[in-house]
Amino acid sequence: MSQGTLYIVSAPSGAGKSSLINALLKDNPRYDMKVSVSHTTRSMRPGEEDGVHYHFVTVDEFKALIEQNAFLEHAEVFGNFYGTSRLWIEEMLAKGIDIFLDIDWQGAQQIRKMMPEAKSIFILPPSREELERRLNARGQDSEEVIAKRMDEARSEISHYNEYDYLIVNDDFDVALIDLKAIIRAERMGEEKQAAKYHDMLDRLLAQ
Amino acid sequence: MSQGTLYIVSAPSGAGKSSLINALLKDNPRYDMKVSVSHTTRSMRPGEEDGVHYHFVTVDEFKALIEQNAFLEHAEVFGNFYGTSRLWIEEMLAKGIDIFLDIDWQGAQQIRKMMPEAKSIFILPPSREELERRLNARGQDSEEVIAKRMDEARSEISHYNEYDYLIVNDDFDVALIDLKAIIRAERMGEEKQAAKYHDMLDRLLAQ
Ligand SMILES: Nc1nc2c(ncn2[C@@H]2O[C@H](COP(=O)(O)OP(=O)(O)OP(=O)(O)O)[C@@H](O)[C@H]2O)c(=O)[nH]1
Ligand SMILES: Nc1nc2c(ncn2[C@@H]2O[C@H](COP(=O)(O)OP(=O)(O)OP(=O)(O)O)[C@@H](O)[C@H]2O)c(=O)[nH]1
Repeated sequence: MSQGTLYIVSAPSGAGKSSLINALLKDNPRYDMKVSVSHTTRSMRPGEEDGVHYHFVTVDEFKALIEQNAFLEHAEVFGNFYGTSRLWIEEMLAKGIDIFLDIDWQGAQQIRKMMPEAKSIFILPPSREELERRLNARGQDSEEVIAKRMDEARSEISHYNEYDYLIVNDDFDVALIDLKAIIRAERMGEEKQAAKYHDMLDRLLAQ
Repeated sequence: MSQGTLYIVSAPSGAGKSSLINALLKDNPRYDMKVSVSHTTRSMRPGEEDGVHYHFVTVDEFKALIEQNAFLEHAEVFGNFYGTSRLWIEEMLAKGIDIFLDIDWQGAQQIRKMMPEAKSIFILPPSREELERRLNARGQDSEEVIAKRMDEARSEISHYNEYDYLIVNDDFDVALIDLKAIIRAERMGEEKQAAKYHDMLDRLLAQ
């Protein structure tokens, strides 16, 4: 059996990254895809659940985890700390499960350095107007917060060219098909297929 | 607009390579995929058409084309010469059209050296028994010819690990979906998307 693929998925807030990953994992009959749950020091929002959306920890707990080398990568994003657990991911990949990391460009850079075989996907909104519309539609944030998020979006988007794949999330269903095609194609990669079909290849080549 | 992708598709005879490429191109509403028609010195078979399946030429004509540097690659395959026209392919790629080359492992090696951005796909049969069954089902060849093709198949398959992607053609419809996923995913590649969405990206990043 071959290792799972580690997918880095980044996007500005409002591009639809979380919805795409959720839709992808809903239709997952072989349970061969999972999303990593990060640790964060930011406060829980209404509707969020500890251990599901994030592992919510204090700054001291977060620092202790860094000391224990528990994170594959960690970064400060907009004033809060976020980190990706190393152990769980290594276990899942070894089982052949594809793992999705919903992390920012800083985390992406760190992962790429450590695991060059990871694949990274950037989700783009079709326009700034649409991004702003989507942020407003959430109805969660004040005008001031949205203006700040629009600035942060520009900074996140400026790293688009560091990614392996770009998906434009204009029509959600099309973007989901694009995402699924990437995963299906990566599974057709020579190394993964050669591991999967090891015995068959032996028989095909036997004298 | 970005360049088209050059796809090399190789397989042993009977793996279903031609049927897969034909099925792929049938469902091609944007006319953005084409298959290259090679030159060959082998004799025309019943049902084949000059300029459609191959450009059928004499050995002298073939040698003259080599002299004129008309081929991107050429090779001797099972006693006949085959070559891929350079000019047409370069024109099509420049128009953003994806081109499929149905060539053997020798041609694949030459193309990879010259155009490292080409993507190569190897189609595998599920077993030697099934390959033999398919060759017999064509009803074209004697037992002796089939035995020779089975030997040639082993030699072609031995190069599987030089390819970017492996598709196992057990269930034809599944293999076709695999092939389509590879093409869709390649179009999501950062460079191609950045070229396609150049203006959109400019607007997203404008201050
Ligand atoms: N480097 C890194 N970034 C993370 C991690 N977990 C989350 N992030 C990123 O931190 C940013 C903020 O995420 P959230 O706190 O969920 O807030 P948000 O802006 O509403 O996020 P969205 O769900 O993308 O809209 C996003 O860009 C996430 O991708 C992590 O473990 N490491
Ligand atoms: N290098 C190279 N190989 C080619 C070219 N055109 C065809 N071939 C290969 O030559 C081999 C023989 O092709 P054909 O003469 O069509 O005979 P075939 O064995 O019935 O081919 P299949 O259709 O694959 O069953 C196949 O492996 C082709 O992929 C070319 O231009 N260059």
